[in-house]
Amino acid sequence: MAIELAKKGMGKVSPNPMVGCVIVKNGKILSRGYHKYFGGNHAEVEALKKCKNPKGATMYVNLEPCCHYNKKTPPCVPQIINSDIKKVVISIKDPNPAVSGKAILQLNENNISCKVGILPNEAKKLNESYIKYIKTKMPFVILKMAYSLDGKTKTKTGDSKWISCGKSRDIVHKLRSRTDAILVGINTVLKDNPKLTSHGKGRNPIRVILDTRLKIPFSTNVLNGKSKTIIAISKNSDKTKKEKLKKIGIEIIELPSKSNFLDIKKLLVELGKTGISSLLVEGGETIAQSFLREKLVDKIMFFVCPKIINGMKYMKNAAAVKNISVKKIENDFLFEGYLNV
Amino acid sequence: MAIELAKKGMGKVSPNPMVGCVIVKNGKILSRGYHKYFGGNHAEVEALKKCKNPKGATMYVNLEPCCHYNKKTPPCVPQIINSDIKKVVISIKDPNPAVSGKAILQLNENNISCKVGILPNEAKKLNESYIKYIKTKMPFVILKMAYSLDGKTKTKTGDSKWISCGKSRDIVHKLRSRTDAILVGINTVLKDNPKLTSHGKGRNPIRVILDTRLKIPFSTNVLNGKSKTIIAISKNSDKTKKEKLKKIGIEIIELPSKSNFLDIKKLLVELGKTGISSLLVEGGETIAQSFLREKLVDKIMFFVCPKIINGMKYMKNAAAVKNISVKKIENDFLFEGYLNV
Repeated sequence: MAIELAKKGMGKVSPNPMVGCVIVKNGKILSRGYHKYFGGNHAEVEALKKCKNPKGATMYVNLEPCCHYNKKTPPCVPQIINSDIKKVVISIKDPNPAVSGKAILQLNENNISCKVGILPNEAKKLNESYIKYIKTKMPFVILKMAYSLDGKTKTKTGDSKWISCGKSRDIVHKLRSRTDAILVGINTVLKDNPKLTSHGKGRNPIRVILDTRLKIPFSTNVLNGKSKTIIAISKNSDKTKKEKLKKIGIEIIELPSKSNFLDIKKLLVELGKTGISSLLVEGGETIAQSFLREKLVDKIMFFVCPKIINGMKYMKNAAAVKNISVKKIENDFLFEGYLNV
Repeated sequence: MAIELAKKGMGKVSPNPMVGCVIVKNGKILSRGYHKYFGGNHAEVEALKKCKNPKGATMYVNLEPCCHYNKKTPPCVPQIINSDIKKVVISIKDPNPAVSGKAILQLNENNISCKVGILPNEAKKLNESYIKYIKTKMPFVILKMAYSLDGKTKTKTGDSKWISCGKSRDIVHKLRSRTDAILVGINTVLKDNPKLTSHGKGRNPIRVILDTRLKIPFSTNVLNGKSKTIIAISKNSDKTKKEKLKKIGIEIIELPSKSNFLDIKKLLVELGKTGISSLLVEGGETIAQSFLREKLVDKIMFFVCPKIINGMKYMKNAAAVKNISVKKIENDFLFEGYLNV
């Protein structure tokens, strides 16, 4: 229940973790709380605020409560101690190695017993971005790609903007609303002129464009001001254009480059500094290859559509595979389907 | 039960269909039978032979019984009529449009009622090769490919002979034992020197090699005589080599060719004439593309291994994707997985 409550903060609390909290006594729920927005009360404080008599109760929370002061709100541990809560059940320890386990220690020292390790995998998955970010100060990188069944991202003419189905695109738009930033390469901008928004599915992510030679046209959708846009450029890019872009509110990050490839590890460090804890990479194959080559991808989300492009010029000529099914064969996945039916 | 019985004939009855038969009276099974091998008794006759008193019983069978004479064994319908069976329950009609429904008509005319359409999809899938073959006289074509998650069939150096896991290869070997013939291109023969056998998983399929310019070396494994080998060549191939191959028992099919591509539709017609009702295409990308381009693929079997090759030279450098899962999103499939864990 704490994990489900935590999810309500999805897309609103970053770079904080999503946390939910339930206070229980004698098998009855006394109160619930979750971290609603960045800067708002922590889940534990929310739950305690609503709880009339927490004395002797058990608190369930999906992340070790905080005990440090260098942040927006006062730490939770002293408030838990003051509440006379008897026991705290925690999914996972604070992933920050510098403070991990310290809250549990403080609680124990105040005669509050702690149990750690309830649904740890679910709790880790929920806050996978936060965990990566707090440990490395770099955003959690999700590489999203759309492939045909034969592993193509486009036809010969490149008319594969909508390779995946409507429902898949909905999922991507939702994902964008839950991710701090989205990144594409300049070629995608020039070819598709995308908006890179969540298309009404929630708040819009920050847009990051990899544009080594600053080729971006002023008229393009990503410069429409509807959400913050960051352009990553090489150090020897056109200075006048750079200043012009800054004037219309575009943020510029200058990066070292090697044989026309920007130093994307450095980019992740810079994005981390601005508080971006999760980055959705939606570029084409070149961008994907760069991130993979540098081992900077944490998670993949590959949408596979039931078509075989097989060197066709147009998507309409791709072979549609019918009655398709997939099953796991040890490590592999087996797709079976029919043509000519 | 009839369908399960039928499956026992898998790989043994081709180009006949797999058929199983169960005779039931008053809710009790009187006897069962299945078509065991090509030229052997049909399932209905097997079941009737073992049935002491079929009078008034119901016969269950996954395919309309035969009523025509131009084949190895006498037709089943007269024997069913003579047995005093009361009712016949049939999954699907004979797929041969020329005789489809005729047995049912004969049975009805002899006061045996028929019910058609029980588990028709399962029955069709079971005999998908037979259905295609009997309608078109061309084999049912299964295209088997092995891809990495990013849709690559090999690394830059081509060291991807074993792209898929052991269990997947077992499935392919079993599939070979159930398929009349297996086809690869000469490049696969030259590069991998495969045996193209079922590796002890059952009988070996006939091997078909597409070799436009007759480049096959005499020392190669597919010429080892362990199962029949057919080489498809263009009409202007080396005559001396052709004759030498024929002398060691290799069958040669000469085909028209257009800009170095053999006429594979014609090949399917020729293979059909020799009684090959199913063909497993296991070639590389070029072969796959030819079959797909000509719309000659009936079924795909794509094995996807949880690796990202992404332009790597060697499979050992491909990124392994962990904790991978796949789910259906409307028409698409979404793979999610983790790197760097």
